[in-house]
Amino acid sequence: MSEKNDDSLVISSDPLHPANLIPELCRSFYQLGWVTGTGGGICIRTGDKVFIAPSGVQKERIEPSHIFVLPYPQTDPSPHTDRVFLRRPALNLKESACTPLFWNSFDLRDAGSCIHTHSQHAVMATLLWPGPIFKISHQMIKGVRIAGTGRALSYLDTLELPIIENTPNEEDLKDSMAEAMIKYPNAAGVLVRRHGVYVWGADWEKAKTQTECLDYLFQIGVKMKLAGLPTVLNEEKLL
Amino acid sequence: MSEKNDDSLVISSDPLHPANLIPELCRSFYQLGWVTGTGGGICIRTGDKVFIAPSGVQKERIEPSHIFVLPYPQTDPSPHTDRVFLRRPALNLKESACTPLFWNSFDLRDAGSCIHTHSQHAVMATLLWPGPIFKISHQMIKGVRIAGTGRALSYLDTLELPIIENTPNEEDLKDSMAEAMIKYPNAAGVLVRRHGVYVWGADWEKAKTQTECLDYLFQIGVKMKLAGLPTVLNEEKLL
Amino acid sequence: MSEKNDDSLVISSDPLHPANLIPELCRSFYQLGWVTGTGGGICIRTGDKVFIAPSGVQKERIEPSHIFVLPYPQTDPSPHTDRVFLRRPALNLKESACTPLFWNSFDLRDAGSCIHTHSQHAVMATLLWPGPIFKISHQMIKGVRIAGTGRALSYLDTLELPIIENTPNEEDLKDSMAEAMIKYPNAAGVLVRRHGVYVWGADWEKAKTQTECLDYLFQIGVKMKLAGLPTVLNEEKLL
Amino acid sequence: MSEKNDDSLVISSDPLHPANLIPELCRSFYQLGWVTGTGGGICIRTGDKVFIAPSGVQKERIEPSHIFVLPYPQTDPSPHTDRVFLRRPALNLKESACTPLFWNSFDLRDAGSCIHTHSQHAVMATLLWPGPIFKISHQMIKGVRIAGTGRALSYLDTLELPIIENTPNEEDLKDSMAEAMIKYPNAAGVLVRRHGVYVWGADWEKAKTQTECLDYLFQIGVKMKLAGLPTVLNEEKLL
Repeated sequence: MSEKNDDSLVISSDPLHPANLIPELCRSFYQLGWVTGTGGGICIRTGDKVFIAPSGVQKERIEPSHIFVLPYPQTDPSPHTDRVFLRRPALNLKESACTPLFWNSFDLRDAGSCIHTHSQHAVMATLLWPGPIFKISHQMIKGVRIAGTGRALSYLDTLELPIIENTPNEEDLKDSMAEAMIKYPNAAGVLVRRHGVYVWGADWEKAKTQTECLDYLFQIGVKMKLAGLPTVLNEEKLL
Repeated sequence: MSEKNDDSLVISSDPLHPANLIPELCRSFYQLGWVTGTGGGICIRTGDKVFIAPSGVQKERIEPSHIFVLPYPQTDPSPHTDRVFLRRPALNLKESACTPLFWNSFDLRDAGSCIHTHSQHAVMATLLWPGPIFKISHQMIKGVRIAGTGRALSYLDTLELPIIENTPNEEDLKDSMAEAMIKYPNAAGVLVRRHGVYVWGADWEKAKTQTECLDYLFQIGVKMKLAGLPTVLNEEKLL
Repeated sequence: MSEKNDDSLVISSDPLHPANLIPELCRSFYQLGWVTGTGGGICIRTGDKVFIAPSGVQKERIEPSHIFVLPYPQTDPSPHTDRVFLRRPALNLKESACTPLFWNSFDLRDAGSCIHTHSQHAVMATLLWPGPIFKISHQMIKGVRIAGTGRALSYLDTLELPIIENTPNEEDLKDSMAEAMIKYPNAAGVLVRRHGVYVWGADWEKAKTQTECLDYLFQIGVKMKLAGLPTVLNEEKLL
Repeated sequence: MSEKNDDSLVISSDPLHPANLIPELCRSFYQLGWVTGTGGGICIRTGDKVFIAPSGVQKERIEPSHIFVLPYPQTDPSPHTDRVFLRRPALNLKESACTPLFWNSFDLRDAGSCIHTHSQHAVMATLLWPGPIFKISHQMIKGVRIAGTGRALSYLDTLELPIIENTPNEEDLKDSMAEAMIKYPNAAGVLVRRHGVYVWGADWEKAKTQTECLDYLFQIGVKMKLAGLPTVLNEEKLL
């Protein structure tokens, strides 16, 4: 495992460089309640490089110098001792436990960015939709894209997201997440019961706006359930 | 269709210039949860010019250079290929799908600004008031003006806003919104079921403060309904 | 009515000068949801001068130059044409409709600052406590002072705030507010049904922290009521 | 009681110096609703010095010059007239009433930082879990460490926090808090009924992230209880 450790990969004066964007986005995700207490994260893939925030740190205090850079493609082996890096932080930081799950979004959907949140709206949705699917219709779903990277959904579509069961180690979700993505090829994200959600997009902007749209739908769906309102309508029985 | 494309229309050092105000207001609307995930927006009309934010972008990251400028008056044809512009952004940005709806507020109410939100308070109000009207009394409604541009309501008035049914394409709401505005000439805004609200005012300040007042009323109205409290009182039966 | 109009009264480089503090505090009250849509406000009295924000404006955008300054004492006559000012803004701004109510806090409690909010927690409290008193015990009430300017309450005290009925014009609340303050000499504030709350303190810091404490108590009280929990305990029946 | 009063202890250009961190963290705790109305606080211990914010002040407006510095170890006697200080603010500020409780975290857990909040999520948890223990399982508890300073909990563990009864004076909680920490040696914090929570960690970062994790769990636990969902699962009866 010969690795370069090229710090220049995370030094840029461009605010839209991934090493600058990730800290800024994490600060705003913290404000949204998506990444409190070190949970959650984001990665950005630009061609053959993947930029990832470290694990187990305060997400609202990440600096560009904390960012890991990995080459893409590479097999992302679950024993992560085999992972190849282009750049690791000098500090004693751990690589993200989400890495194999982010890789699913690249390998199976050709995503350019993937976001993981612990939003309570997502978690409550997985509790109030106890089956394997979160489903909602006749809400503002048109900001979400089919499969996360395809064409936008229409108001008349029904949004469906698979819900997988949680595991003690984040890495162990890799296979069940991949399975759900294959079984539901149109799904724009994967919910993890009692844990959160993974959402991806063609680039960081689309991953972010789709995460916002889905979080909005989880939130309004939960409010509707608690108010006793139906969350999926047949065309015939409009409220 | 001969068009100028005058970039100077969106360059100003005055923070109150519409091209500077729209980005600033959109950032604050994002904080309020009104425009998450690219939804919602605002336009400002100053005499014969209309400034509009682009469609489908992150509303909290708009720059003055992203603003469209259209001449007023013009017929706003629903096939928007016929729209005339004074200035379009150089970037590959789409004009707002709200344009025909904003035009209703100019043509039917002589508004100077119109705001569209996807606020969950508005959406929940349209679900808990399943008929064609949202109604509330004996709350702080005196910040709202009759017809949006007339005199202020009094505490003793009952606020009524029409609710129209949503359509897959925003543009297709134009006629039903206009119809509702004509049928309810005192209405200060129009709710769109399962979607959000349109609110206008004589200028951007009044449009914004009225949107805040109405959003406050949607929120407290929803809380009251869920708590089993009556939202409209006869004078005789004060709580 | 001979008036000076001394602009120097609102020009200071000291961030703690009332003319600088009021805009800053109003911005933070806006973030708290206390003064949306032009409602609510704050005044600060320093010896013989009273600084008040104008009426009907966006509270988060007030500038020092917008502040009114009135001499104290003066009879505050409800026909406000007789009010005396030391300084009025050059702009076309209206004096605050809260003025006579702020005056109650000076005349009856010797307050140095009074805050008025439209907080939904206050409004919901007036709906879920339908009688003339909001009452709560065994919560963090020790940040509140007896009569607003006296010694701090203890955890073992029961907090009681009178609730007065709303009127269409803010000024018309003056007498019923004064009556409630006289009838409940220990009350640290006065709730206005379906409208909001008035809270005062010996200075702006105490007025602000007491408003925060009371708002916290309205919020937790409302949550407890909606969850079916008792909000006042006898010592014998601790939960 | 001979004391130095060394102001240089709170003057540093390093943003991570405790005297700079405490004001910054208090501002962010205020945004989270943890320390409104002067309640709550944080201390940081670095080797033989303890930095503590003053009592009864607006937590979002603390300055480095307001910080108290105490030597560690010292017996922290409940009659606080005997406390030894390395530095007291020149201003008329009171030392924190939380001091003896913070000392529990140093003496019994060797903590490097302790945080006290009045978060409504914590308070509601103490009301909806009326017994002596708050318990939750199958949620994102892995950000919490056993005993607050040990190894991280696993998703399969059940989180348990003792709840002690409140007293009128904060200092009087010292003994019951210590008792609860001894009785529940794995507890990562102590809830105080109708009051708030104390959470500690090996350093300020771990204390803060664990407080966030616990507050998240109080919040989701309360939501689950109110929605009628079970908050502790046997492995056999997964939802």
